[in-house]
Amino acid sequence: MTGQRFSDACGLVRPLDSAAASATGQYQDRLTKPRGSLGRLEEIGIRLSAIAGVCPPPVPEPVTVVVFAGDHGVVTEGVTPWPQEVTAQMVANFCAGGAAINVLARHAGAEVVVVDVGVATPIPTDSDALVRRNIRHGTRNLAVEAAMTTDEANAALDVGVELAQRAVSQGARMLVTGDMGIGNTTSAAALIAACTGRRSREVTGRGTGIDDATLLRKRAVVEQALSRLPPHPDPLVVLAELGGLEIAALCGFVVAGASSRVPVVVDGVIAAAAALVAAAFAPEVVGYLVVGHRSSEPGSSAVLDELGLSPVLDLAMRLGEGTGAALAVPIVQAAAKILREMATFDSAGVSDKADSTS
Amino acid sequence: MTGQRFSDACGLVRPLDSAAASATGQYQDRLTKPRGSLGRLEEIGIRLSAIAGVCPPPVPEPVTVVVFAGDHGVVTEGVTPWPQEVTAQMVANFCAGGAAINVLARHAGAEVVVVDVGVATPIPTDSDALVRRNIRHGTRNLAVEAAMTTDEANAALDVGVELAQRAVSQGARMLVTGDMGIGNTTSAAALIAACTGRRSREVTGRGTGIDDATLLRKRAVVEQALSRLPPHPDPLVVLAELGGLEIAALCGFVVAGASSRVPVVVDGVIAAAAALVAAAFAPEVVGYLVVGHRSSEPGSSAVLDELGLSPVLDLAMRLGEGTGAALAVPIVQAAAKILREMATFDSAGVSDKADSTS
Repeated sequence: MTGQRFSDACGLVRPLDSAAASATGQYQDRLTKPRGSLGRLEEIGIRLSAIAGVCPPPVPEPVTVVVFAGDHGVVTEGVTPWPQEVTAQMVANFCAGGAAINVLARHAGAEVVVVDVGVATPIPTDSDALVRRNIRHGTRNLAVEAAMTTDEANAALDVGVELAQRAVSQGARMLVTGDMGIGNTTSAAALIAACTGRRSREVTGRGTGIDDATLLRKRAVVEQALSRLPPHPDPLVVLAELGGLEIAALCGFVVAGASSRVPVVVDGVIAAAAALVAAAFAPEVVGYLVVGHRSSEPGSSAVLDELGLSPVLDLAMRLGEGTGAALAVPIVQAAAKILREMATFDSAGVSDKADSTS
Repeated sequence: MTGQRFSDACGLVRPLDSAAASATGQYQDRLTKPRGSLGRLEEIGIRLSAIAGVCPPPVPEPVTVVVFAGDHGVVTEGVTPWPQEVTAQMVANFCAGGAAINVLARHAGAEVVVVDVGVATPIPTDSDALVRRNIRHGTRNLAVEAAMTTDEANAALDVGVELAQRAVSQGARMLVTGDMGIGNTTSAAALIAACTGRRSREVTGRGTGIDDATLLRKRAVVEQALSRLPPHPDPLVVLAELGGLEIAALCGFVVAGASSRVPVVVDGVIAAAAALVAAAFAPEVVGYLVVGHRSSEPGSSAVLDELGLSPVLDLAMRLGEGTGAALAVPIVQAAAKILREMATFDSAGVSDKADSTS
């Protein structure tokens, strides 16, 4: 039955381990530094501990980036200047190792897995590296009809679960979300508006760089799609109506990462939309997310606000592919190494401050 | 003559290579990504190119972090709860590899060099790793008199130049500023106020974590020290009156890094104060700086505004030692790898967007 893997994974997401988090917080205060002086890095270390359920946390490595690629029927509305073939061409580029995500993943020591979950046009590669799970050749046009059937959405969710579980079973101890799909910022904006109750104009951005006229068209398309939703739709309906196949797969990927108790580093607005839908299915997922960066797309910030998460980086990036998340990987790993490798005041013979308040 | 090395280094700082920067900007627009979509990473890549004078820029590695340690006579004013001996104890901790900067430098593949330029108390280590250049056992109390003579300040500037030149001659292609000195946020605040014209209360923060009463005392100390400065003092006088020996050494280090045409990654408020003074000696230095992070100390932001620089990271860190800068190292290196390793639209067979505006 389609969706079974996903449904099972949702049921396996457990709350974070608050005892491990608390022990790590106390231990961190004994390290040779003023309490709290490593700021967000200390918070990340505590979170890694809560996820892994041990103090100190393991260094989250090896790392696997999974790039899910899918096309979007909504491109017929003129919401992007890029030809749809670019999705397939970029998939070939990922397989050949020449895209930004390849460079940044190599730099971070992470593996890249590329998955065709819904590319519309022939992919110009015969690479064995491509995982072929095409569910359909692009979604339908979300401006005028449901982008997917619920069966198709469920199948895509299952693909995401499969890839996350495969990566973890092959040793990955941290997962990174990656995506490719011409037109997918329109789908992401619609999902974010639907899940947060925000207006189209608050969450719809310029994506890869569109002009004012295209932006107005894109906003109108999102409004039109939203107007079709029933009141209080369940997450599967929202996903099927507005989603992309790669976004649905990412949703499954995020949930399965959380159910495997590994941190999932979330990239930009596409991944944020997927994470938001994942949280609607399984709220405990949020504890397993590390938001790699704040994208310059407005929907990214809307999701961060909605989920109460802060990004590691804020570098005005808006590429997707997993690039912002891959760039954050060394920082997340550093937080664990601080806890595993630093001396304590006692072990180093360093005097603690005169009063113990911080 | 003390100060000669420093004076020579100031004279060797050249303007950035704008032709290389321009070539890199154009080349970056041909890589398989929407133009500008890597945000700040693209700016860093262009800057690295302007520094090195080639397109694409070399990956800035190996990296050397130099931690300059010095004590501050102003601690007798009660501006910090930490005993002065902690400076010496932390120097020993650096030599043993147990401090935060050791962990983060190892993580970034960077070497750590530890320099005693003015520690007041005996350093509990017999490590060969410690570079012994002690100029005096801590500065005088800047609240009531000049912290250093101009000769002492010049000697410390020279130590900084020596260590930067030594690192570069041993192969370093990027330098990272490190510092240790109980009381040094008071000195840094005074220097920043003097160089920016801001009031003490705008730039004086809680450092390692002080209570309200101590903060008020610290601000008053800074005001008192500033009131002693002559109108329009030259940078050497400002440095001698208000500086620390480690801050003066960092100032020399920054200038010498720039004169060697290597990027210098600047850490928090102590390094920012040193960079600000360096810019007063040799304004072209600013082009060679990459600000690793925005410290939560208010003086850090004041310097960023003054020099027109944006930080790579903003993680609410306030430890010093070079930790925020070391954490930014992989991101700076990633910017160069993007330029060296990514495919172009032509080479990858990827269609560029329909119109070429971005």
